[in-house]
Amino acid sequence: MIKAYGDRESGNCYKVLLVLHMLGIEHRWIPVEILAGDTRRPEFLAINPNGRVPLIEIQPGVHLAESNAIIGYLADGSPLVPADRLLRAQMLQWMFFEQYSHEPNIATSRYYLHYLKDPVGKRDELERRRAPGLHALGVMENRLSRVPYFVGDRLTLADIALFAYTHVADEGGFDLEPYRAIRDWIERVRAQPGFVPMRV
Amino acid sequence: MIKAYGDRESGNCYKVLLVLHMLGIEHRWIPVEILAGDTRRPEFLAINPNGRVPLIEIQPGVHLAESNAIIGYLADGSPLVPADRLLRAQMLQWMFFEQYSHEPNIATSRYYLHYLKDPVGKRDELERRRAPGLHALGVMENRLSRVPYFVGDRLTLADIALFAYTHVADEGGFDLEPYRAIRDWIERVRAQPGFVPMRV
Repeated sequence: MIKAYGDRESGNCYKVLLVLHMLGIEHRWIPVEILAGDTRRPEFLAINPNGRVPLIEIQPGVHLAESNAIIGYLADGSPLVPADRLLRAQMLQWMFFEQYSHEPNIATSRYYLHYLKDPVGKRDELERRRAPGLHALGVMENRLSRVPYFVGDRLTLADIALFAYTHVADEGGFDLEPYRAIRDWIERVRAQPGFVPMRV
Repeated sequence: MIKAYGDRESGNCYKVLLVLHMLGIEHRWIPVEILAGDTRRPEFLAINPNGRVPLIEIQPGVHLAESNAIIGYLADGSPLVPADRLLRAQMLQWMFFEQYSHEPNIATSRYYLHYLKDPVGKRDELERRRAPGLHALGVMENRLSRVPYFVGDRLTLADIALFAYTHVADEGGFDLEPYRAIRDWIERVRAQPGFVPMRV
């Protein structure tokens, strides 16, 4: 059975939880608290030297890291991954956009504002991430004002990857009120079979 | 025929050039100069609203962005992508590691030091990217001291993605002298059939 190490409050970990539930994959969820320092302990670094969650154990001793690689593995061959070569590449395009242009700005701002005890000390960091974060939301809004899902005509891993931190973007100081298409898309993702919320 | 828009001096674009040559894919390379502002012009933004290269045109009007999604598309079904599901996921893991933990530190430092006229004004930025850049190189060295290639027993897209900015890391102020395993791996990549250098 797949073991998934994760902190559900982390959008990257929540992606894994969503895919496990949407595809009905039997698994054991092992809570790891990032803020308590769990990912920096020697026993965790032994299985992931990069010191990050999420992480899955596929079989004893065989681990996989990086949220988007994990959901790619879990959903391989499922309806969440298009069979068509071009659509599959477009899905990956949005997943790399998420990790490069979205997550470092929106998720990191949320971390400073929502989790750190002293967000004031991070004012410069927050300021630096504001414009690129808004740019990423603009790219998403532009896309979603023309299509219901990022790729093809149904939900794929691209939507799941981008949903994770977008639906809590307000916790990073990014108000979604002006983004009508993004808000409608969030409701479409929430209505999917197997959907589970970030917080129980 | 595939049209590839890119700036060969950019590691992200160079990945695409490498895969096109290693797989012998017929293509037209369209030079785009980032420093001259080519990627911010309206005609380019019309095809890629995110304003970045590399970009490929697969057929008229059908474009694909994000370097690692592009090479994933080009190499789909080739020996550069493992057929095995787990190996393919591990390849993706290293490609996401590259875009999240390596490129923003090593490539960005190279940009400041090697291309900007005033790197002095970027001293804080360079300082901030130093420790995570060294950490990324440490993760690579750790892996490559045990295996010849990142995934499986031969070159995959994981190696190509990581090679692009690693082999010019010194231009970002990251001396590779202490990284014996990385330096040996660089020579293995250079010896591959179809290899072309970044600079002609």
